[in-house]
Amino acid sequence: MTDKDVRTPASTQKTIGWHKAYVEGSRPDRRVPVRRVHLTDGRTVTLYDTSGPYTDPLVDTDVRRGLPPLRENWIVARGDTEEYPGRPIRPEDDGIRHTSPRGGLRNLDAVFPGRPRQPRRGRNGQAVTQLAYARRGEITPEMEFVAIRENVDPEVVREEIAAGRAVLPANVNHPEIEPMIIGKRFLVKVNANIGNSAVTSSIEEEVEKMTWATRWGADTVMDLSTGRNIHTTREWVLRNSPVPIGTVPLYQALEKVGGKPEELTWEIYKDTVIEQAEQGVDYMTVHAGVRLAYVPLTANRKTGIVSRGGSIMAAWCLAHHKESFLYEHFEELCEILAAYDVTYSLGDGLRPGSIADANDEAQFAELRTLGELARIARRFDVQTMIEGPGHVPMHKIKENIDLQQEICDEAPFYTLGPLTTDIAPGYDHITSAIGAAMIAWWGTAMLCYVTPKEHLGLPNRDDVKTGVITYKIAAHAADLAKGHPGAQEWDDALSDARFEFRWEDQFNLSLDPDTARDFHDETLPAEPAKTAHFCSMCGPKFCSMKISQDIRREHGVTQAEIEEGMARKAKEFAAAGNKVYLPLAD
Amino acid sequence: MTDKDVRTPASTQKTIGWHKAYVEGSRPDRRVPVRRVHLTDGRTVTLYDTSGPYTDPLVDTDVRRGLPPLRENWIVARGDTEEYPGRPIRPEDDGIRHTSPRGGLRNLDAVFPGRPRQPRRGRNGQAVTQLAYARRGEITPEMEFVAIRENVDPEVVREEIAAGRAVLPANVNHPEIEPMIIGKRFLVKVNANIGNSAVTSSIEEEVEKMTWATRWGADTVMDLSTGRNIHTTREWVLRNSPVPIGTVPLYQALEKVGGKPEELTWEIYKDTVIEQAEQGVDYMTVHAGVRLAYVPLTANRKTGIVSRGGSIMAAWCLAHHKESFLYEHFEELCEILAAYDVTYSLGDGLRPGSIADANDEAQFAELRTLGELARIARRFDVQTMIEGPGHVPMHKIKENIDLQQEICDEAPFYTLGPLTTDIAPGYDHITSAIGAAMIAWWGTAMLCYVTPKEHLGLPNRDDVKTGVITYKIAAHAADLAKGHPGAQEWDDALSDARFEFRWEDQFNLSLDPDTARDFHDETLPAEPAKTAHFCSMCGPKFCSMKISQDIRREHGVTQAEIEEGMARKAKEFAAAGNKVYLPLAD
Repeated sequence: MTDKDVRTPASTQKTIGWHKAYVEGSRPDRRVPVRRVHLTDGRTVTLYDTSGPYTDPLVDTDVRRGLPPLRENWIVARGDTEEYPGRPIRPEDDGIRHTSPRGGLRNLDAVFPGRPRQPRRGRNGQAVTQLAYARRGEITPEMEFVAIRENVDPEVVREEIAAGRAVLPANVNHPEIEPMIIGKRFLVKVNANIGNSAVTSSIEEEVEKMTWATRWGADTVMDLSTGRNIHTTREWVLRNSPVPIGTVPLYQALEKVGGKPEELTWEIYKDTVIEQAEQGVDYMTVHAGVRLAYVPLTANRKTGIVSRGGSIMAAWCLAHHKESFLYEHFEELCEILAAYDVTYSLGDGLRPGSIADANDEAQFAELRTLGELARIARRFDVQTMIEGPGHVPMHKIKENIDLQQEICDEAPFYTLGPLTTDIAPGYDHITSAIGAAMIAWWGTAMLCYVTPKEHLGLPNRDDVKTGVITYKIAAHAADLAKGHPGAQEWDDALSDARFEFRWEDQFNLSLDPDTARDFHDETLPAEPAKTAHFCSMCGPKFCSMKISQDIRREHGVTQAEIEEGMARKAKEFAAAGNKVYLPLAD
Repeated sequence: MTDKDVRTPASTQKTIGWHKAYVEGSRPDRRVPVRRVHLTDGRTVTLYDTSGPYTDPLVDTDVRRGLPPLRENWIVARGDTEEYPGRPIRPEDDGIRHTSPRGGLRNLDAVFPGRPRQPRRGRNGQAVTQLAYARRGEITPEMEFVAIRENVDPEVVREEIAAGRAVLPANVNHPEIEPMIIGKRFLVKVNANIGNSAVTSSIEEEVEKMTWATRWGADTVMDLSTGRNIHTTREWVLRNSPVPIGTVPLYQALEKVGGKPEELTWEIYKDTVIEQAEQGVDYMTVHAGVRLAYVPLTANRKTGIVSRGGSIMAAWCLAHHKESFLYEHFEELCEILAAYDVTYSLGDGLRPGSIADANDEAQFAELRTLGELARIARRFDVQTMIEGPGHVPMHKIKENIDLQQEICDEAPFYTLGPLTTDIAPGYDHITSAIGAAMIAWWGTAMLCYVTPKEHLGLPNRDDVKTGVITYKIAAHAADLAKGHPGAQEWDDALSDARFEFRWEDQFNLSLDPDTARDFHDETLPAEPAKTAHFCSMCGPKFCSMKISQDIRREHGVTQAEIEEGMARKAKEFAAAGNKVYLPLAD
């Protein structure tokens, strides 16, 4: 593959139905992107936007150049980082071993062609994290940016970060991102996983999946690539991503030792973390809670260990009869992450993989260790979130979030679903959206999406979209249930449009305008149907909303009059104890 | 259309992956259908089956003949019913008015060609309902049938029906059904709506949708047809349906008066109810709770009245300035329903149609009236369930079921979703599955499915399947959360198959084996992949389950040994306070 093969993805095409706009903060370079939906009744609805410059018709994006480094001046201005030559890139970073039949050459054709850059890190190894700044009382440009985005006071952002209840993942080597925040006081966020595997997919596909996922609302993207070209794929993804990128460094480390867990070492792992931190990875899943002593607790499980990282670390622990090197070197790892502002996502390597294994001793033993590690990370000023399950029946979900919040001092919870039943492979976006909505209502800060292909295969472009939309539903349902200020305005605007038969407004306000429009047109395609006071579901005679409107019209001269009159009568009726029959005058 | 156009539907083709079997009760004619999944490890899993004789390769089904009348002998043997000539079928029953340009002729080509039959009703108008029998202490063949189906004692079935906590919808004129029960002590049920409208679809499509919906697990089907051929469509559906059929008689009554709500009368409505009861409709939605005095309570709503039946009755009440004729004639209606054993589904005509309108005064005022009506129905021995919302954010769901159970003396709740957000038209099967799973966990007995086309258009075949599967997920997730005996066995069997890489077993145990298999084959189509110890998600090196199995194999001679050894170590570890590092010997 040459770099010319990596085309500007189709998902970057300009969108209709809503318009990109910006809300400016205290300085001109603090421009927060929003979606503006201009309704046919003259009103405007403003929505959160994750899609980056790709949906801005005034920005000329080119995936071979990468996105503009929005945060660069902010980072430089702080004066606490330095550029340095960085670790040389080696063939094995892309999974090419010296024993490979193709020899030790990197696939140089695929190397990202954007401007050369040197990595950056904290001077003298100091912590350059948003947590360190927040604890010192500083409101950074990143914090101001997310305060505008979330429509809250910047001081609230600072406080939540300082308390460890929220994280703002923003590696100093990923200046391209539009800052976002993950914490229970803010909008519930959604992560989309992408990544090639040894079996399938290419760099181009992964960049395309990333832009596609953020187009539909993914707040962060995890690149879970295994197999070939891991380093190079990640470079393309990072340079083009407007959202924080997460990884599981263990996957790449395992590739470097030919897939043999027992050959892993702390040195190889540490080198991989530095490699990825220098590239700009914003958060890393670290399975440091899978301790040797917990592995036997999984012996009687129905589905053993289902986390890839968890199973790799368990295999390493047993092969060496030693405590996990991640657990043993955790403080050293904290020092590295602090110097780049990489956020921990402490992985739940022993999460349940079936309903039968939910909330068992293995799972909760690991959770207690994650709480211990979170406190260590905090000492080093490293931002930290905690990963959660998995497969959990509804009646056992609340215990998960309650225990996590207690044990981990309210560090943000980041859960995979949970799936509420095992019986529906092919529909696990739905089995898990049920659990995701509930656990987010109860306090989970970010939801890792599950696609229809879960348990069966790698998601394609359609699966990524379905997964993201499904999880945006779960997240928004939780925002509503939590009473998040402003969340219901979106529902209200759409319901108003629905009641008033403003079909175009209804489509444009939808999470997925294309699908809403297509479904409508399938049975009533003609253009007049877009203003019709009915649809194909009930036809004109049976449209309850039309009848409801007719009632209002016929029993009053204007809408306002009938509403006023009816409201008065309703009050009289209530005053009379809701019992007496009151004749209506008109 | 001639009757030859109504072909045996594609969905009646014989199924692979599972086998139809029967569990016999106390007599040979009480044969309860089940699905048997024969696993590759020699075990068998038995699942509930709603698909009727269509999936039995030994039964020769023909939609032009209809299904065998399974219950006929049971009904006749009770000796409390009589056949009678019945009401003559008139052109207007099929929506053909005398003023129609096509004149007053019925479309006789489409008339159901099966054996002629006379309707049946209770002798001297007596109540021939399962509720009447249950209160007298009788366990009917229908009750025994559902007891086998639900794997409970027949006395439990009788008690729940007698107490009004469960209904067994079984019109004496619908002998073709395989009896089923709706109540919170039993498996959560799913209803699928079908029905043509003035705008689209034909008889053939509706029969096909019914068999297709039950093929995927629908427990009941509501025929919500409007427009032409309502009577004839329903006849075809009833004669071919193995599940109870529900309707909203008001829709047909409105067609008979040309779609003008104000022209409705009690006489036309009553005649329509008798027409449908004689055909065999098992339960009817009756919006008798929409009282004149409640209509003004909807004036300030965001989306007014969104129930078709509710808006029709509201329009009638306002046009005449009179109390609802359904409310006024409710006792007379009870007498009619009791004589056929038609079950009430008391409609929530004032249910909220948007998040903003959830749990408002209009909704709960109507609910209080439904409680009053349920008590009247009980006096007449008419089985009764109560319909529920609609659009409700998660934090307001529990109040709905708690209040309904209190006000309606634990009568079965039958809810539409509820949808937990308004912002995702095109995905309302998902927005509502979240609410459906939660409310069913808390006690809802039957869930009315929502398809992806909700709010946008009429569901096609694919939408019906997606709706049913999505709701089977919600229902089963609730069964698990309620701790329904046996529910988890299904999940366990599938998770065992998953952990042991028995791909074929995993597919066959799925709610939708076809989709699971297709998704798997999309990335790894080759036949050997069906026994491979990995899939395309992670590839062979990163398969956590494979690593998990390797761990078990490498650290013990046999699976049993390692499990025994590991369990012992786990116990030692727990005994040591889960803190101390214990070296593993092997």
